[in-house]
Amino acid sequence: MFVLPDEHQPARLFAPTIRYFPRLTLSSRAAATVALGQPELNVTVAGVTESRAAEQVEYEQPAAPSFLFDLDGTLIDSVYQHVIAWRNALAKLDINLSVWRIHRRIGMSGGLFVSALLRETGRSLSAHDIELLQQDHAAEYLAQVDSVTALPGAPQLLATLTSFGVRWAIATSGRRVMAEQALRLLDLPADVPMVTRDMVQHAKPDPDLFLAAAALIGVDPRSAWVVGDSVWDLLAARRAGALGVGLLSGGYGREELERAGAYRVYNDPAELLLRADELGVRNLASTPDGTD
Amino acid sequence: MFVLPDEHQPARLFAPTIRYFPRLTLSSRAAATVALGQPELNVTVAGVTESRAAEQVEYEQPAAPSFLFDLDGTLIDSVYQHVIAWRNALAKLDINLSVWRIHRRIGMSGGLFVSALLRETGRSLSAHDIELLQQDHAAEYLAQVDSVTALPGAPQLLATLTSFGVRWAIATSGRRVMAEQALRLLDLPADVPMVTRDMVQHAKPDPDLFLAAAALIGVDPRSAWVVGDSVWDLLAARRAGALGVGLLSGGYGREELERAGAYRVYNDPAELLLRADELGVRNLASTPDGTD
Repeated sequence: MFVLPDEHQPARLFAPTIRYFPRLTLSSRAAATVALGQPELNVTVAGVTESRAAEQVEYEQPAAPSFLFDLDGTLIDSVYQHVIAWRNALAKLDINLSVWRIHRRIGMSGGLFVSALLRETGRSLSAHDIELLQQDHAAEYLAQVDSVTALPGAPQLLATLTSFGVRWAIATSGRRVMAEQALRLLDLPADVPMVTRDMVQHAKPDPDLFLAAAALIGVDPRSAWVVGDSVWDLLAARRAGALGVGLLSGGYGREELERAGAYRVYNDPAELLLRADELGVRNLASTPDGTD
Repeated sequence: MFVLPDEHQPARLFAPTIRYFPRLTLSSRAAATVALGQPELNVTVAGVTESRAAEQVEYEQPAAPSFLFDLDGTLIDSVYQHVIAWRNALAKLDINLSVWRIHRRIGMSGGLFVSALLRETGRSLSAHDIELLQQDHAAEYLAQVDSVTALPGAPQLLATLTSFGVRWAIATSGRRVMAEQALRLLDLPADVPMVTRDMVQHAKPDPDLFLAAAALIGVDPRSAWVVGDSVWDLLAARRAGALGVGLLSGGYGREELERAGAYRVYNDPAELLLRADELGVRNLASTPDGTD
């Protein structure tokens, strides 16, 4: 079944000059096995000649990775305070929704959020009531804002990316005035690249926020990692052509993030920093910035 | 491969007199296929004779189902308020934990909860500090208790079970004084069967609370449904020999509840009431009590 092409120089198949192994040069029946833990490295390959495989292959280098970060639940620990603030604001309009249903909608555009909640309750609200609701939510949130902190590793992650020259931006469904408060928690200046709800036509799960953030820092969204804590981030990432990374720090389960398309799921920014090599950003965690 | 035992009376295999089909009468190679959507019902069976299958089988009737309910996140909508209360109480001791990590521990015994959180932070606390922490959590929770309501369908579910003569009890990791507040939200008298943290040696995920609740209403835990919103309920259910039913109303993901062993997962008590036939309690939802 399997043919060993060259017993004497098997390692040449995986020589360091080969960085890209095109799928199409292997027939569909081809198989490669590397038996480790033996004194000699045995390579068994069928369907491709050894000399062809050992040649260097010209290919387009992948673009340098960049990052587009959601804010609430991804960089700052504010999701539960937002949830309670929405619950209280809705209750004042006599809309009594179970709190977990509000949690599951956080991170959507405010408009979609309100529509979705009203659909679940069978209620309708005037434009005036919706404006009141959003103001009330802001007031309820600001009353609790002292308990909001940066998520573990978030300031370090952003500082380390900057020091490595990796481009990044923030893209949040929140309004500018709320987002600027968060920048202080993250030790960031006010002029950091950030796209807020008021700067785009549609919020998540539409891709606008991430497309605008990519444009702002001059990167192709297809080479960017979208990092977010909710399914809405991950769905918007896919619509933007980007790969999504999920964080558990917004309180959602690992499986729901994976099912929404997360390439990887980490606990929080601290763990992402530690495992950034999985995202093609090497040696981040080995710097002094990255370890504390 | 497959043998059709009797072409003329294939439907007798599924005659209404057969309520129990013992596995051991089928050989391991046996297979049954029912082709639906055809004018005739075709049944193909191998490895069992048609006459044997059509006999009535004597067997032990399963016990009538009963229910052991968790309280917070299962019957009342209090999880997020508890989470924020713990966050604020811990912050006063300068323990800054991400809020999602607190959420993931809610529903454990208070002792295990504090140990788990301290392990994650590498801190230790004196017995005095732990007592202060629990008092502070209670005070922070009570400050928000006005925003706590019954979950949709909870009062109706309990009233309907009672009117059908289905036995049920409440088993909560919370203290008596907190739990009694909840009874009012559920339109329940103070003497309802309820086991609280102070009545057993260990809380969830130990099985004590559910074993005590089953004893209190005189049922075998193996015939009881444990209904809860957290993985700790479902793990404790398995240790009590009971089957667990998960509710999403505590804010956890469906998949994490399924992975912890949930037999079924519903949104909230209202959906459980609607689908109680899946738990062997028939016609609950068809009563006037069950539909509103």
